[in-house]
Order: sequence, then structure tokens, then C-alpha cells
Amino acid sequence: MFGPLLTDLYQLTMLQAYFDAGMDAPASFELFVRKLPERRNFLVAAGLAQVVQFLEHLRFDPAEIAWLAQTRRFSSAFLEALRDFRFRGEVWAMREGTIFFPDEPILRVTAPIPQAQLVETRVVNLLHYQTVVASKAVRCVLAAPGRLLVDFGLRRAHGGEAGLLSARASYLAGFSGTATVQAGRDFDIPLYGTMAHSYVQAFEDETAAFEHFARSQPGNTTLLIDTYDTEAAARKVVRVAAALARDGIGVKAVRIDSGDLAVHATRVRAILDAAGLTQVGVFASGNLDEDRLRALVAAGAPIDGYGVGTRMNTAADAPFLDCAYKLTEYDGVPRRKRSEGKANWPGRKQVLRCIGQDGLAQGDVLALQDEHVAGEPLLEQVMAAGMRIGPAPSLQACRDRLRQQLALLPPALRELDPAPSFAVQISPGLHALTRAVDDRLDASAMEPGDV
Amino acid sequence: MFGPLLTDLYQLTMLQAYFDAGMDAPASFELFVRKLPERRNFLVAAGLAQVVQFLEHLRFDPAEIAWLAQTRRFSSAFLEALRDFRFRGEVWAMREGTIFFPDEPILRVTAPIPQAQLVETRVVNLLHYQTVVASKAVRCVLAAPGRLLVDFGLRRAHGGEAGLLSARASYLAGFSGTATVQAGRDFDIPLYGTMAHSYVQAFEDETAAFEHFARSQPGNTTLLIDTYDTEAAARKVVRVAAALARDGIGVKAVRIDSGDLAVHATRVRAILDAAGLTQVGVFASGNLDEDRLRALVAAGAPIDGYGVGTRMNTAADAPFLDCAYKLTEYDGVPRRKRSEGKANWPGRKQVLRCIGQDGLAQGDVLALQDEHVAGEPLLEQVMAAGMRIGPAPSLQACRDRLRQQLALLPPALRELDPAPSFAVQISPGLHALTRAVDDRLDASAMEPGDV
Repeated sequence: MFGPLLTDLYQLTMLQAYFDAGMDAPASFELFVRKLPERRNFLVAAGLAQVVQFLEHLRFDPAEIAWLAQTRRFSSAFLEALRDFRFRGEVWAMREGTIFFPDEPILRVTAPIPQAQLVETRVVNLLHYQTVVASKAVRCVLAAPGRLLVDFGLRRAHGGEAGLLSARASYLAGFSGTATVQAGRDFDIPLYGTMAHSYVQAFEDETAAFEHFARSQPGNTTLLIDTYDTEAAARKVVRVAAALARDGIGVKAVRIDSGDLAVHATRVRAILDAAGLTQVGVFASGNLDEDRLRALVAAGAPIDGYGVGTRMNTAADAPFLDCAYKLTEYDGVPRRKRSEGKANWPGRKQVLRCIGQDGLAQGDVLALQDEHVAGEPLLEQVMAAGMRIGPAPSLQACRDRLRQQLALLPPALRELDPAPSFAVQISPGLHALTRAVDDRLDASAMEPGDV
Repeated sequence: MFGPLLTDLYQLTMLQAYFDAGMDAPASFELFVRKLPERRNFLVAAGLAQVVQFLEHLRFDPAEIAWLAQTRRFSSAFLEALRDFRFRGEVWAMREGTIFFPDEPILRVTAPIPQAQLVETRVVNLLHYQTVVASKAVRCVLAAPGRLLVDFGLRRAHGGEAGLLSARASYLAGFSGTATVQAGRDFDIPLYGTMAHSYVQAFEDETAAFEHFARSQPGNTTLLIDTYDTEAAARKVVRVAAALARDGIGVKAVRIDSGDLAVHATRVRAILDAAGLTQVGVFASGNLDEDRLRALVAAGAPIDGYGVGTRMNTAADAPFLDCAYKLTEYDGVPRRKRSEGKANWPGRKQVLRCIGQDGLAQGDVLALQDEHVAGEPLLEQVMAAGMRIGPAPSLQACRDRLRQQLALLPPALRELDPAPSFAVQISPGLHALTRAVDDRLDASAMEPGDV
């Protein structure tokens, strides 16, 4: 469905220009975020697995080349060369689940410039979105520690791929699972499901709806109780549960999807407990995000789990990051752009994380790749000659990685409210290189009449 | 890539329960939006073409059924029945490009309940996102009348499908084209492209970068001039253009991507005009949305076209709509849910638009499908027995539809700022039906001890 034509036109016209100029020296591009959204104290790198897969399989099929030919924008020699186009470069990246900060590259591609250039659009598309979602979802996890959190957001995610990838990114961030069946199949994420109001409405009687469902999914039943009157429905659940118990069938939970969730949950919990149904859980959903989760937890709402949808999958308060994939070296020469407000650090870089005496991360250093600087290097090589190095880490390993990273984070950064920035220093080597590049650019920028 | 497993688990477990209960009477579900986002005066229906395609091709392949079997959630009789599962229902919908308001159904599915239920997730996923984007993009079109607007947002759209579908939805909304090559191929949308900063940086000298590109894409060249110093680059363009002119090659435009766009555009325009390059256009990009476009137009910035990306593709100020796909009738009986703040109107409905003496739309009526009410009916039947009725309208026809709809809209609603709500009245028939349904629900809600 998504091939090499899922790219910006200018990538292909630039490739034609590189081809005409015979330019194919190695280029390094780095992907980084310029600044944090207002309500993010850190970001979580995610999406690398899909990037590597994309790069390993990138090629133009004859139909795609034929389509490009009929646009009359490209030379036949160039189109002929596209037949053998492969990504054969190397990639360095932060492991998925790594916490990172502005200006820190989370991925570097080094390859002949046409290869490193062409892949920009889709590499950004894949890394940006999962990073957006993981960085939002982790806030929900921090806001509701120990609670079951389930991704419910496929329907209002931005298209099918967003639904799938947000299930993955939220699970990576610490969610317990997803309702999206295909994500369960593709990524081996635990699946959760309840029932819809339409199911309840299709029966003349709510009690009959509950009983039929429980007998159809014995032992795996979450009954939706807010279609008409939440507390009345909870009392019906009590009666249904008694009938089911005689046949050895249990009810797992009830779900509330509207109204004041804390108030209804408290009343419903009391109804269930009074009937001895202490083992039946209360599950809530409806317009949830990290702020509402925090408020419900703070209010002591007796809710065991939450379905979190749209606001997480669309990262509604910050649906995009100010990220860029920028040329930092070409043909052995470090490069930077100096556009107003959009300048970037030149050269191939590494990020070093320094752990203090208290066992917590105390700051990062942005350094040159080969500079000797103390700290744990966060970028590691993941592809060589266009192929993945070693086996892909499991999604579970990425999830564990994030959990470990969170444990190292200064506590203020784990709060939902804005915290003082985490320190990211620039190394002496990177400062020196930047000055050298600027001197070179200033010299070449002088026009003939300037001297 | 996206099959029937791109759905919520509960759709499949509800299907199992319907199967066990032998429930397959016809059900009608309607998709509507509960309320407008703060900064939207109207919404634009989009995405129907993809919905129809999805419904026409929906089936489970053997591998999908085998995967479902190993989850041990479903009976073998049910899984066997899934082999022949097809959507055989009827669909009524507003034509793409139709302007609509809260509570108005934009789509109704009527089919045996398992079919109408299963398709919910993907139908919402497809219609919601394109409607979100078209409703945002049309604001950009209204803010910059007569300007060239190009979708630049694939890289930060939420996944690949969002990139493709937002190219489509923004073109429908009146954009001139997109940078996304695959959208050009799949939807026949005009393609536009410029060049990246990395291209300029890869050359030792900006002048050489410009000249190489122009010779590689003669006559189709937009030169990016803000990599180092915008006005200095504009002067280089003047020299390059003179050299190119000797070989009969023209420069189409320059592009500015940073800094104060109005200030730079004015200076660049003066440099170009002073050199006689009055035919070279100025194109701008960078963090644009309808508000910035309006400000640039109001400032009289000499900018001929704009690349609009992330904020449009993610609909950053309102990345989702409060929409729902609700059961309104089952087995001939009208239904509604009454959850707090989420009640909906029962029965199969039609939306009638009334045009006043001045030729402008003056209000809509939400009525029963077969009620006699004056006005233009906005819902029309698009599928019967699971197949599309007649040929699919072209994307161009949808675009024209929106243009005509905009012309009928009261002028205040076409402004970016909030306007008084458009009147949507409830018909007498719908009021009466709702009372009848409530009376029935109240009667059945009485518990044994209540009387």
C-alpha cells in the first residue's frame, strides 16, 4: 500500500538533479526535535522498527517507474537507474523507549546523498507519529499508576496506519493493551474489548443484553451500563450475575462511558459490593486524557481500568512536534543551515547521558560522534550496508527500556506539570566545529562586491 | 494492508453474541457530529469514496479467520460463518463536499445488524479524518482567496494513510495540489514541489545549487532561498536567472521558509522586480495555518502561493470531532441511547436544507426519512445490496460541490472567527418519534419494585 511514491515530489526532483550533477557522495542526515511542546517535560523515541523495515524493503517496482515516466518530469536514464535503487546506507539511532530532549538526534542516516535524501519523508512520517503518541501516552501511564490502561482510539485516529501505530506506541509507553484487533495480530499486543451501546439498544431489555453477552463470552465479559441509567443498570448486573453464577459464569467488569465518572463509579461500586460482587471491576472511558486520569485518581474514584482513546491517539493537546531531518555532513564536510529560528548543529553527533551520585540522570551532552565525552552513549548503530544489525528488539524490550528510563528521570520531569528543563550541554568539540563551519559559510557568502 | 481486522475487538465479540442469539434483523446506524469545535462555523463531509470502497471489498480471508481461531475467543460455527461475511446493506450519505452541522447524519448504514455493527470502526476512521481535514483546509482556502495553496504535510501527518487522505481532503477543500507523489497517482491531484535546504547545503555554493536544479528541471523550478541569507540568495537568483535565460530556461518562483515571511517577501519581490524578473513568483511556507494566511494576506505580502503542512494535516487546533455512529433503528423499532450528554435522535433521518429569498441557505431541518418537509434533501442513497449505485463522483465533482455549497453559505459563516450558529430545526415528526421512544424506554426501565 505504501511504497516509494509515498514521498514528497521534491525528493524525486532533487534525486534527478543529483543524478544529473553526478552527486552521490555520502551524506549524513540527523532527525531531531527543535523544542518541546508546552506540556511535555521529555519525549519518548518510538517508531524505529517501522523505519528499519521501510529502509530494508525500499524499491521501485516497474509500475511505479512507468507512472513516474508519464509525468514527464524525469529523464529516462534516471528512471532506468531507479530500477536498482536500494537503501545501502548505515543508520544510528536511539533505541525505542529512550527518553530524549530538544536538539538531540534520535536517528542518523548516512548514505550516498540520493538514498539519504529520498527516505526523508517516510522516515520522518514514521518516527514522528509514534514519538508523538508514545510521549503523550506515557503521561497517561504516569497519571494513573497501576491502573489498567487500554487504547480505544482507532476510530478517531488519523487513518488506519495511525490507529495501528498508536496501539503500538501506547503499549510501548506502558498501556496494558489495545482494542485494535490488527494491532494485536501484527504486534502481539494484548487485546481488550467490552460492548457498544448499540448492542444494548438492539435488545428490548438491558438485562437480556447483558445475559446474552455473558453467555457468549463466558468469563471475559465487561458489561456497558450507561446506555440508559447507570445505577439502574448496575442493579440489573447484580441480578444477571446471580443467574450466571448458577451456571459457573462470572462477570469480569462493568464499564461506564458518560457522566461524572467518579460519582457513578462510587455508586456502582457500592451497588456491586453490597451484592457481594467485590471481584467485579469498574472500567471507565469517555474523553479521557492524562489530566482527567490524574483528577480521577486524586479523587479516589474506585475505577480499576480506563479506556483511553482519541485524545491520546491524536495527541490532542500537541498533535505534532517541531522536528526536522537535516543534512549535517556531505562528502566529508560538516554542514548546517542558518535559516532564522531554524539553524541546526553540524556534523555527525552522539548524545551522552550522565548519571549522578543519586542514580538519576543529571544531564545530557550533545557531542561529536567520535569525541571523548563521559556518559552513556544513546545512539547506537542499527543498520549497516542497508541491513539491520542483529535481531530487532521485541516490543516488550522497548517497553522495558522506557520503564528503566523513567526510573532514572528526575522526579519533577515525571510530573504532568511543566518542570525546569533537563540540562543538555554542547560539547567543546561541537562548539568548535560549529564555529569552523560558520567561518567557512561567512567566507563563501561574501559576494564579489563585498570585498 | 488494512482488512477486516482493522477494527475494535468488541465488534467481533458482539458479532459472536448476535450469532449466538440468532440476531440478524436490519439495523440502521447514523454517523453524526455532536458539536462543532470552537473555531469551526461549519464542517465539510469527506471520505465517502473510501468508505464505499471499504464496504464493497470487505471480507475475511482464511489467514485472518485462522488467526481469530487461535485467540480462542470465538466459536467454530461463528468463524465458519465469517467466511461468507459480506456487506450487503444499503448506505445513504451526504455527497462529499457537502457542508453540514451538528446532529445531522452524514451517513446512514442499514443492514443486518452484524454487518452494520462490524463496519463501524473503519467507517468512522475513514469519514472522521477526511472530514476533519477538509473542514480545516477549507478555512485556509477562505483565508487566502485566489492564492495557490499546496499540501506539504505528509511527513508530519499521522502515518502514511493520513498523508494520502489529507492530500485528497485538502484538494477537495480547494487546495491547488499536493507534494505527496502517491496522492498524485492515486487521486489524480496536481503535484507541486520545490527543493530542500539539504539540496542547497550539499553544494559548496548556493549559486551552483540553483543553476544545477534549474537545468535539471527546466521551466519547473522553484528555488529555495532561505538556507543562509534570504535577500543575498535572491540576488544570486537574479544572476542565475540571467545565465539561464541565455539558454531559454526560466525560473518559476522562489520559496521562503523562515523568518518574517511578509518582510522577506517584500524585500525579495523588490530585488526580483528591480532585475525585471516580475514573472518569477514568490512562494512561502513554514508553520502556516488559516490565521497566518489571513494575516499575510491582510498585510499585503507579495506572496503568490503557500505550502501548508502540519497544522492543516493534523488539524492542529481541533484534531478530532466529537462524532458518533449510533443505532437509530433495529428490527423496525426506532432506538436511541440516553447516556448523559450523549443522547441521540432516534429513527432513520433526512436533512433538508432551506434556501431563502436571497439565494442563501437559511436553515436546515432534521426530519424523519419519509416525512414531508420542504427543502433540499442532503442524504442520498449511494449503495444498495452492498454495491455502489452508479459511478463514483470524481474528486473534481466533490470539489465543485463544496465550492457551490460555500457560495450558498451566509457570509458570516465563511469567516474564520466564530459566527452565530446556523439554524438546525427538529421536525415535528422527529419530535413525536423521540417522545414515543422515550415513553417506551421509561416503561421498560421501571424495575419490578417500582410499581
